[in-house]
Amino acid sequence: MGLLNALDLDAKIEKSDYQAEMEKLEIKMGQLQRKAWERNVPITIVFEGWGASGKGRLINELLQVLDPRGVKVYSTQAPNEEELRRPFMWRFWTKIPERGRVAIYNRSWYSRFIVEKMDPIMSQLPSDKAYQEVNGFERQLVDDGHVVIKFFLHISRKEQKKRFKALEKNPMTAWRVTPYDWKKNKQYESYRDVIEEMLARTDSDCAPWHLVPAQSWRFAVVSVFETVIEVVEKQLLALTKKTRARAVALPSISHSMLETSDLSKALTRKRYDHLRRVYQKRLWELEHDVYRRRQAVVIVYEGWDAAGKGGNIKRLVRRMDPRGYEVIPIAAPNDIELAHHYLWRFWLKMPKAGHFAIFDRSWYGRVLVERVEGFATQQEWQRAYREINEMEELLANNGTLLFKFWIDIDKEEQLRRFRDREKVASKQWKITDEDWRNREKWDQYRDAIDEMLYRTHTPYAPWTIVESNCKLHARIKTMKTVVRTLEKHLIKSP
Amino acid sequence: MGLLNALDLDAKIEKSDYQAEMEKLEIKMGQLQRKAWERNVPITIVFEGWGASGKGRLINELLQVLDPRGVKVYSTQAPNEEELRRPFMWRFWTKIPERGRVAIYNRSWYSRFIVEKMDPIMSQLPSDKAYQEVNGFERQLVDDGHVVIKFFLHISRKEQKKRFKALEKNPMTAWRVTPYDWKKNKQYESYRDVIEEMLARTDSDCAPWHLVPAQSWRFAVVSVFETVIEVVEKQLLALTKKTRARAVALPSISHSMLETSDLSKALTRKRYDHLRRVYQKRLWELEHDVYRRRQAVVIVYEGWDAAGKGGNIKRLVRRMDPRGYEVIPIAAPNDIELAHHYLWRFWLKMPKAGHFAIFDRSWYGRVLVERVEGFATQQEWQRAYREINEMEELLANNGTLLFKFWIDIDKEEQLRRFRDREKVASKQWKITDEDWRNREKWDQYRDAIDEMLYRTHTPYAPWTIVESNCKLHARIKTMKTVVRTLEKHLIKSP
Repeated sequence: MGLLNALDLDAKIEKSDYQAEMEKLEIKMGQLQRKAWERNVPITIVFEGWGASGKGRLINELLQVLDPRGVKVYSTQAPNEEELRRPFMWRFWTKIPERGRVAIYNRSWYSRFIVEKMDPIMSQLPSDKAYQEVNGFERQLVDDGHVVIKFFLHISRKEQKKRFKALEKNPMTAWRVTPYDWKKNKQYESYRDVIEEMLARTDSDCAPWHLVPAQSWRFAVVSVFETVIEVVEKQLLALTKKTRARAVALPSISHSMLETSDLSKALTRKRYDHLRRVYQKRLWELEHDVYRRRQAVVIVYEGWDAAGKGGNIKRLVRRMDPRGYEVIPIAAPNDIELAHHYLWRFWLKMPKAGHFAIFDRSWYGRVLVERVEGFATQQEWQRAYREINEMEELLANNGTLLFKFWIDIDKEEQLRRFRDREKVASKQWKITDEDWRNREKWDQYRDAIDEMLYRTHTPYAPWTIVESNCKLHARIKTMKTVVRTLEKHLIKSP
Repeated sequence: MGLLNALDLDAKIEKSDYQAEMEKLEIKMGQLQRKAWERNVPITIVFEGWGASGKGRLINELLQVLDPRGVKVYSTQAPNEEELRRPFMWRFWTKIPERGRVAIYNRSWYSRFIVEKMDPIMSQLPSDKAYQEVNGFERQLVDDGHVVIKFFLHISRKEQKKRFKALEKNPMTAWRVTPYDWKKNKQYESYRDVIEEMLARTDSDCAPWHLVPAQSWRFAVVSVFETVIEVVEKQLLALTKKTRARAVALPSISHSMLETSDLSKALTRKRYDHLRRVYQKRLWELEHDVYRRRQAVVIVYEGWDAAGKGGNIKRLVRRMDPRGYEVIPIAAPNDIELAHHYLWRFWLKMPKAGHFAIFDRSWYGRVLVERVEGFATQQEWQRAYREINEMEELLANNGTLLFKFWIDIDKEEQLRRFRDREKVASKQWKITDEDWRNREKWDQYRDAIDEMLYRTHTPYAPWTIVESNCKLHARIKTMKTVVRTLEKHLIKSP
C-alpha cells in the first residue's frame, strides 16, 4: 500500500466556496512573495505528476498572482546536447534561484527516476547514487536557506485516458498526445510502482513531498496555494525566531598533510627543459584523446600567495590546443554570485565531456579565505567540507576526472618572492597590500589548509601536494601527474 | 587580383631576432592588457584562416602573456541545438566581452560566409543581409568603445597539404584530419575566391582585416603581437585625447503617433468577458501551433507608469502553457549588465524558435528612461535608434515575429490610478516616490516617446498603440492583435 493509494481522488470543492477561498489565497500569496523577497528567502517549487494531470495549468495559476520580476519557470525535457555532456544534475544546479526569487519546475530532477527505470537505455548511474545526488542537492539548498516545495499531482488511469481523448479531439492540440503517452497510460500500474519508490526514497524532512489529488481542478488549485503559503510562512516565522542552524559535528584531524611536504625537492634547468618538452608534447597528444573519448577533466589549483599557480598553469597548457581547455581564474564573487548558493558559480563553469577546466583558485575558497577572513560563518564553512565532497563525488560518479593541486611554499620563500616582485618593475602589479596582510595570517591559513586537505582528500578526488620552493620541480610534478593519471585512466576506459 | 595574392608568403624572421623581439613584445602586451583593463576598453580578437594555418597555436601564444582573469577564448564550431533555434548572430552577441576584458575567437561569425557559400544547405539568409548583420555588429561594438582586431592567417595550398600530412603521421592526431579537410584542400582555389569576397566586403574602417602570412611561425607570431599592440595603443591614446564621438545626424520628426491615440475607446465588462474567453482560448491553440512550427515570437510592452502593462500581460498569458512562454521583466541593469553593450542583456533573453518572450519594458529604456534621466549620453541614446532597428531587423530576417505595444493613458488617468493605489492596502507596494517623480517629467517623457515611436516604427517591427484609459479595451486589443497577426503569419508560413 503506497502513498498514492491513501489519497482521496474524489476530493472536491464547491464553486462558491472556491471563489471566496481563492480571493483570500491570492492576496496572501502576493504578500508572502514580497515578504520572502525582502527577507532573501529563495523558493523552489517542483511540479511532478502524471501526464495531463494539470501541471502547466497549475503553474500558470501561480504565475497569475506572483510578481513576474521574481519568478522563473523551467520546463524539464529530454536533455539537450550541452546537458548530455555534463552530469545529470548540472542543469539543475546551474538553475537554482537567487535569494528572494522563486523557481518553478514543470517536471524536474525527478524525471530521471521515472524515465531511467522505465527506459533503461537512459540509465547512467546506479539508482542509489542517483537518489544520493538528489537528496544531497535538496539538503544543500535547504541548509542554505532555500524553501523546497515538491508537489506530485495524482490522477487515476481512467481520468488520464479521458484527458488524453479531450486533447485529441481539438485539431490544434491533437499532436500533443503521442503514442508514447498512450503507452504510458497502458503501463499505468508499473509506473505507479516506480513513482511510489521515488516518493518514498526522496520524502526527506527538509524537502517532503506534497501529494495532491488532481482530478478536481478546484481542489488541486486550493491545495497547491494553501501548501505554498503554509510552507513559506513557516520559513519566514523561523527566520524571525533566529533559530540556530544545526551545528556541524566534525571528527578531529588526525594528521597534517602539509607536514609531509618536502620543500627541498628541486630540479636543474637542464633537466627541466628536457622534461618540460617531453610532457608538454604528451599533454598535447593526450588532449586529443580526451576530446575524442569525451572525457571531462577538472584541475584545481590552490596554493599560497606567490606559490606560482599562474606560472605553473601556463606551462601546463603551453602546447595544448585552446579549443580543448579553459583556464578559470576565481576572484571574489560578484553580486549575482553572492545571491546564489556558493557552489553555483562553479557549477556554471564545469567542463563538458571532452574538455579540460583548469581552476586557478576554486570552491575551496569557502574553507580558506572565506573562513579565515570571516566572509563565511563557522557553520557555513564547516558544512562546506561535506558539500564540496558531495559535489566532487557527483562529478566523479558521472565520469569527470579530478585533479587537485596544493602548490606549496614555505614562509621564507614567500617573503623572497614578495620582495622580488617589489623590485622588478614588470612584476610590481602582482604584489598588493592585501598580499602582505594575508601573510600576517600565515598560521591561521595553515590551520585552514591542513583541515581542508584532511577533510577533502577522498578516493574520488585526492589532493596532490606540489612542492614549489623550486618552481621547476613544481611545474614538472603537475605535468607528470596529469600525464600519468590520464594515461592510466584512458587505457582503462573503453 | 585579391588581397591575399599581395601577401609575401616567404616572409621570415631569424631565430635570434625573434627571441629578442618577442621578449619586448611580451612585456609590452602584458602591460597593455592591464592598461586596457583599467581604462575599461574591451578587446575582441578574431582569428580566421585556412585549416592548419596555426590559429590555435597563435591563440595559445597570446594566452601565455595575458592575465587569464581578463581573457575568454571561444571556438566556433557547427551550431548546437540551442544556437540553431536562434538567429545566427545570437551566439556572438551573447558572448561579447565585458568592459576591460579580452575575447578571442578561434573562427568566428565569419565562418558563415565560407560555410554557407561552399555548403549551400547551411545557407539561411541572402548574403547581403548576412554581411549587413556582421558589419552592423562590429560597428556597434566599436561605437561602444570596443577594439575589434581581425586576423586572417594565410598559407598556400601546398603548405596546407604538408601540415595535414604531418598531423596524419602522429597516431594521436591523425583523426583530426578528415576527408572533408582534404576536400577543402583540393578546392583551395574556390575557397580563396569566397574568402577574398568576404575580406573585401567586411574590411571596414572601424574593424579592418589584418592579413598575416603564416607559413613561417615566427613571422606570424611577431605580426600578430605587433598588430594587437599597435591597435590597442592607438585606442588608449584616443581615449586620453577625449576625441569627440561622431555626432549622430537624425532627420527631424514629422508627426506624433501619440496624438492619434483615441483614449476614449472603451468596452463593457460583459463584452470584455466574452471576448477575453474567445481570444484566450485561441491564444492557447495558437501557442501550440507556434511551438510545432518553430516560430519565435517577441512581444514588447512599453507604456506609462500605471498604464496597466502587468495586468495586460497577465490576461494575455492567462491560458497559455507556461512551457511555451516567458515573461521577462526589465529593471535597472545590474553590474554585470552595465559592463556590457546595453543590448547584451536582451540578446541573452531572446526566445528560441517555437517560444514566446514577453518583455515587460525592454531595450527601449535606452531612449526613454535612460534618455530622460541622463543615464545615457545624448550621443548614446541618439545612436540607439539605429542599433535597435538593426537588432529588430536581424531578428525579423531570421524568422522572429515581433510585436511592440505602447500602452497609453493620459495624465489624468494616471493620477486617478496613483491615488487609487495609495488608498488600497494590497496595492500600496505598487506606488513609490519614484512614480511621482517620473510623473513630474511627463512632458519630457512624452517627447521621448514620440521620437521613439517615430524612429523605430518599421515595416519589420511596427508599433501598436494600445489605448488603455479603459483597461478592458486595452487587454482585448493586445490579445486580438497577437491572435490576428499570428493567424495570418502562420498561414503564410510553410
